[in-house]
Amino acid sequence: MAISEFELIERYFRQGCQRGNQRKDVLFGIGDDAAILRAPDNNQLVVTTDTLVEGIHFLKQIEPAVLAYKSVAVNLSDLAAMGADPAWLTLALTLPESNEPWLAEFAAGLNQICEYYGIALVGGDTTRGPLTITLTAMGHVPAGQGIYRHGASPGDWIFVTGHLGDSAAGLKILHGDLAASDDHREFLVTRHLRPTPRILAGRSLRGIASACMDISDGLAGDLRHIVKASQVSAHVEITDVPLSSALVETLGLEQAQRVAIAGGEDYELLFTVPEARKGALMTALGEAGVSHTCIGQIRAGEGIHYYRNGEVESDAPTGFQHF
Amino acid sequence: MAISEFELIERYFRQGCQRGNQRKDVLFGIGDDAAILRAPDNNQLVVTTDTLVEGIHFLKQIEPAVLAYKSVAVNLSDLAAMGADPAWLTLALTLPESNEPWLAEFAAGLNQICEYYGIALVGGDTTRGPLTITLTAMGHVPAGQGIYRHGASPGDWIFVTGHLGDSAAGLKILHGDLAASDDHREFLVTRHLRPTPRILAGRSLRGIASACMDISDGLAGDLRHIVKASQVSAHVEITDVPLSSALVETLGLEQAQRVAIAGGEDYELLFTVPEARKGALMTALGEAGVSHTCIGQIRAGEGIHYYRNGEVESDAPTGFQHF
Repeated sequence: MAISEFELIERYFRQGCQRGNQRKDVLFGIGDDAAILRAPDNNQLVVTTDTLVEGIHFLKQIEPAVLAYKSVAVNLSDLAAMGADPAWLTLALTLPESNEPWLAEFAAGLNQICEYYGIALVGGDTTRGPLTITLTAMGHVPAGQGIYRHGASPGDWIFVTGHLGDSAAGLKILHGDLAASDDHREFLVTRHLRPTPRILAGRSLRGIASACMDISDGLAGDLRHIVKASQVSAHVEITDVPLSSALVETLGLEQAQRVAIAGGEDYELLFTVPEARKGALMTALGEAGVSHTCIGQIRAGEGIHYYRNGEVESDAPTGFQHF
Repeated sequence: MAISEFELIERYFRQGCQRGNQRKDVLFGIGDDAAILRAPDNNQLVVTTDTLVEGIHFLKQIEPAVLAYKSVAVNLSDLAAMGADPAWLTLALTLPESNEPWLAEFAAGLNQICEYYGIALVGGDTTRGPLTITLTAMGHVPAGQGIYRHGASPGDWIFVTGHLGDSAAGLKILHGDLAASDDHREFLVTRHLRPTPRILAGRSLRGIASACMDISDGLAGDLRHIVKASQVSAHVEITDVPLSSALVETLGLEQAQRVAIAGGEDYELLFTVPEARKGALMTALGEAGVSHTCIGQIRAGEGIHYYRNGEVESDAPTGFQHF
C-alpha cells in the first residue's frame, strides 16, 4: 500500500527527530508551514546547502543509513569550515517510490548522526522523483568570529587536519578499480562513506586561523580557492602532506601522494595560521584531540607551487571538478 | 564548451544576487563554505524547504524564469503563513546538463523575485542530474509572534485571502484539459504560474489570527491540517468560498466551487480569527490591501463539514495529495 507524504514525514522523521533531539532552541520543528527557531544572542547565523544525486555523488547500491550519514556529514563539514556550531537541519528528499524499509533505514541513519552532533531536523519536504538529497544546515558563530577563505596573508602557515587521499582511494575500491588488503579496504572505504565532519577542530580555530575551508574537491582544487580569495600564493611541500599507512601501503608512496593532493571528499579542514598564533593552534587543537599537519606556507604572488624535499615539483596533480 | 560549477555559480547567481540584493544583514553570501547572516535581536528564525521536480511539480516546457519565480514564491508563501518577514534564500539546483541560456534566464527570474521581495540568495549548490530545484527560505518574526496551525478555537471565524481554484484551472488549461476564452486563459494560467506569496497579509495577521497556513494542497486538504492540529471541527459554507469571475465563467458555478475546494497550489492564506479580533483584522488587511473572505466557523468536534446555503452538503470534494 502506498503511504502518503504526510504519513511518511510523520512516521519516520518527525517523531524520531523530535524524540532524539530535544534542542530547546527549536520552538517548533516539523509539522507546520515552517520551523521557528531561536538563535542565541550576539551570534551570527551560518547556513550551507548541499545536494547529493544518485549516480553522481553516491552509488546506487549505497546503504540508506550510510547515505543519510554522509549527506549530513558533508553539510556539517561546511559549517565546521566556518568555525560554526551546528544547530539545525532541513531535508529535501526526492524518492523514486514510497519504499518504507529504505525510508526507515535512512531515517535511522539521519537520527543517529543528528543525535551524535546534537542537531535537530527542523523541516523537510518529501517528493517523488529521481533519488536526490538536499540538506540545508544551519549553525552559529559568536559575532565576528566566522572564518572565511579570504583571510590568508603572506607568511601564514598552511595546515590540514587528519590524513588526505583515503576517501578517494576508498571510492576507487568501491568502484572495483583498486585492490587492497581486507583491513585497508575497510579503513579506506569507511573514510569514504563515513567522513568525520571536523566540528570540534573548526570551532577551536576561531580567533586562530586566518582562513579555513573544508577539502571536498581535493587539496589542490580547494587550496586554489583560498589562494584566489586571499590574493596570495601557496607553497606546498608534497612530502609533508599527511598520509595514512593504509593509503601508502595500498598505493605506494608516490601514488598515495598524488591521490592525497588530487583526490576529493576528504572533508578535512584546510586552514592557514599566522606565525604568531602557531602556539595557540597547538594548544587549541591538542585540547580538541585533532591531528593536524603543516604542509607549507602562504607567500605573496599567485597560484600553488609544489615542492618535493625542497625542490620545485612541476608534475603535481591539479584536482578535479564535479560539474 | 562546458562550463564548470564554479563558473556557473559565479556568473549567474553570485554577481546578480549580490548586486540586486544589498541586504546589510548578509555578512557573507555566496562564495565560501557557508553564508554568514545577522538575524535581528528579539526575533525568531523561520525556516522552510520545498522541492520542485520536473514532471511532478512543473511541466517540462515551463520557461526557466517562470520556474524560478514559482520556486521562490512557493517558499515565501510558507514563510507568509507563519507571519514571517522573508530575508534569505538558498538554492540547490540539479540540472541535466550545463545549459547556459537556460541558466541565464533562470537566474534572471530568480533575481527578479528576490529583488521584488527584498530577499537575498545567500548560498547554493549546483549539481548534475534530473532537473530538481530545492529552495530553503529563511525569515524572522518578532519573538513569540509566529502563527501556527494549532491555535484555532471553537467560535473562531475561518478566512481565506484572494480567490481559490484559479491555479488548478490554470493547470488544467496548460495540460490541454480545459478550454477558456483568451482573457480567462491568460488570467488563470498566470495564477498557476505566478502565484502571489501573501507576505504582507501574513505579517498583518500577527497578533490577530489564531491559526494560519497557506493553501498548497487545496482548501479541503489544508483545512484538515488546521482542524487536526487544533483538535476542532470546521464548518464551511460552500457558497461563501471566493471565486474569480474568470473561474466561474470558465467552469460554471458548481464546478468552480468544486475546484476551489479540491484544487491546489492557490498559495492563498487560510486562517482563523477569534470574534474579538475581527475588527482588528479588517483594519490590518484593509491597510495591506489584501482581499479576504469569511468562509465558515470553527466549532468543537472534529472533521470538516460543508454546507450549501445553510444545508448540509454531503457531496463535497476532499482534496488531493502529491505523493
